[in-house]
Amino acid sequence: MRTTLTRLADGRELVYYDHDHSPPRTALDRRELPPRPAGSQLRHDPFLDAWVMVAAYRQDRTFLPSTEDCPLCPSREGRPTEIPESDYDVVVFENRFPALAGDEPTWLEPDTGPPGALPGLLGRRRSAGRCEVVCYSPRHDASLVELSPDDVGLVLAAWVDRTARLSAIPGVEQVFCFENRGSEVGVTLQHPHGQIYAYPFVTPRTSRALAAATAYHRSTGRNLYDDVLAAERAAGERVVTENGSWTAFVPHAARWPYEVHLYPNRRVADLTSLSLSEREDFPPIYLDLLSRFDRLFGLRTPYMSGWHQAPVREGREELALHLELFTIMRAAGRLKYLASSESAMDAFANDVVPEAAAERLRALGP
Amino acid sequence: MRTTLTRLADGRELVYYDHDHSPPRTALDRRELPPRPAGSQLRHDPFLDAWVMVAAYRQDRTFLPSTEDCPLCPSREGRPTEIPESDYDVVVFENRFPALAGDEPTWLEPDTGPPGALPGLLGRRRSAGRCEVVCYSPRHDASLVELSPDDVGLVLAAWVDRTARLSAIPGVEQVFCFENRGSEVGVTLQHPHGQIYAYPFVTPRTSRALAAATAYHRSTGRNLYDDVLAAERAAGERVVTENGSWTAFVPHAARWPYEVHLYPNRRVADLTSLSLSEREDFPPIYLDLLSRFDRLFGLRTPYMSGWHQAPVREGREELALHLELFTIMRAAGRLKYLASSESAMDAFANDVVPEAAAERLRALGP
Repeated sequence: MRTTLTRLADGRELVYYDHDHSPPRTALDRRELPPRPAGSQLRHDPFLDAWVMVAAYRQDRTFLPSTEDCPLCPSREGRPTEIPESDYDVVVFENRFPALAGDEPTWLEPDTGPPGALPGLLGRRRSAGRCEVVCYSPRHDASLVELSPDDVGLVLAAWVDRTARLSAIPGVEQVFCFENRGSEVGVTLQHPHGQIYAYPFVTPRTSRALAAATAYHRSTGRNLYDDVLAAERAAGERVVTENGSWTAFVPHAARWPYEVHLYPNRRVADLTSLSLSEREDFPPIYLDLLSRFDRLFGLRTPYMSGWHQAPVREGREELALHLELFTIMRAAGRLKYLASSESAMDAFANDVVPEAAAERLRALGP
Repeated sequence: MRTTLTRLADGRELVYYDHDHSPPRTALDRRELPPRPAGSQLRHDPFLDAWVMVAAYRQDRTFLPSTEDCPLCPSREGRPTEIPESDYDVVVFENRFPALAGDEPTWLEPDTGPPGALPGLLGRRRSAGRCEVVCYSPRHDASLVELSPDDVGLVLAAWVDRTARLSAIPGVEQVFCFENRGSEVGVTLQHPHGQIYAYPFVTPRTSRALAAATAYHRSTGRNLYDDVLAAERAAGERVVTENGSWTAFVPHAARWPYEVHLYPNRRVADLTSLSLSEREDFPPIYLDLLSRFDRLFGLRTPYMSGWHQAPVREGREELALHLELFTIMRAAGRLKYLASSESAMDAFANDVVPEAAAERLRALGP
């Protein structure tokens, strides 16, 4: 793999991740771009002890452009895009409309509450952090599932490298590499791509996971992720597929109609700790899972897929790297909506029994 | 108000809540109905220490029936519905496809993990609890916002009574009265109605709220909800409207594009503790808020609205009854989706600045 770092016309970073045999990337971005928006804001929710990102300029972000105007395709004569080159293998760049922005450490602004309000009650701060776009392929109509194992290996290499680089930015506490696919899950650009959020806080979900894993360790002296993975492998009824390095299973308490968690058999904190053979074994099993998802309903199944990694500075002994893949589709033409029980109470109802979901995914074969 | 209790053909409870002048409700349900499904199942997610409801039979639930086949309209000659009477004011009945069912206390089933799995690691239990449907009006095309204050007062009386009755069922730990409106949020029946979930556990959201309020009390000796309400009232910039008993404001760290929290000015644990004047002051302010929501985008704005109440046995001193109303619409024709950052990490990004949302809602006037 060869990486080439450049900057877009408004100063954003762009990195090409190329196969060794690909041509050099030397094109310059000659567009006239408006200045980048000032950083976003973080607000502290006192009721849930959680940060919310506020970024008003995102209202103007690009929304379902025509194929002709796709900003993630390579540039062509007279039609410059976000990617200056006329071709690429994998490319990563800073989002033009980021929910998180700013390479400086974050700081607390003075409370804006009225006189007499208690300090910290209505806290806000400027946001550090990064939002990046990962283009998986120059082909507009492709999808990750249609790439070769070699190409998916290059995507994985990009995720590994971005995790290392973003973790080193002052103020970044957690790196999340993910993909939303399908307009059903709100995707506004159809070109095959994922995203990376480098959060300046530990996310609420990861905080809860760390609390549960810590409590489990205190009461048993054991690691929660090791024990669940061993139990799922021993039980087998929810395992979908496995290979030498990875195990994919539907979790016992799945929240989504079809949900698969993919773990390396050896616990590591994040992507940067994967061994060479673990990295080599990932593309075939991930492509297999994505292919099964697409055969569930006979269409490009809308999905969300994301790497859960230990935060940069916390929970590195307790948490375990894994990927969670799920669809909001519960049957052909029927979506699982996050209605009030889920959206207001975080109490999920699942209409598909996890063992039945696993059986169906197993039966679809590799 | 007059209540009339009856049972549907398959044994489910139905209660009419009527104005005093309405005729008696005596009709019987003469349909042949299949037996009710066995209770649903709860599964414990060890990674988040949370229960997930699993109810496979919900896959067959009624999905966007034609107006002719609406199961929530009053019965007509030759076309019996879920409501035996030919008219009603407000009616509540047990959901035919409940995510929670069973009036028995819950119990733990033996772990189904493999030999050697640690107890509790993959825990499941039969679900107790209840799911009820609340029909707000016999008029199929109406919406709550079009009802009279008297009619909304009757809906409130039903919520109060259901909260008291459901809280008394053994095994019920939390009662949640809510409404989802609009197919955009997954509503499968267009008839104006809400729902009530009586959970056999404290929901993840409420557990986190209780932890935050308890920590705040420990460090300050004060109540978090009292202090935030006082701070918001004093600041005023996020207050949308108020009356003698209630204050409506956009929270400082709103997650949703347009989100309003409505608090009684006097802290109470749940709906059953509202005073007569607080009850009387609710319909006008709630109708005002719903009307402003519908004027945001010039259409029936899809929304979720729900009463956050203290659980039955916990947090009754720390938590405060309030209603949270929000829309997933961020602009005309544009929805806020819960994509990966929200769905996988619980990290929300909001494109609308809370003070701007409050200003816009204020400007829409009563």
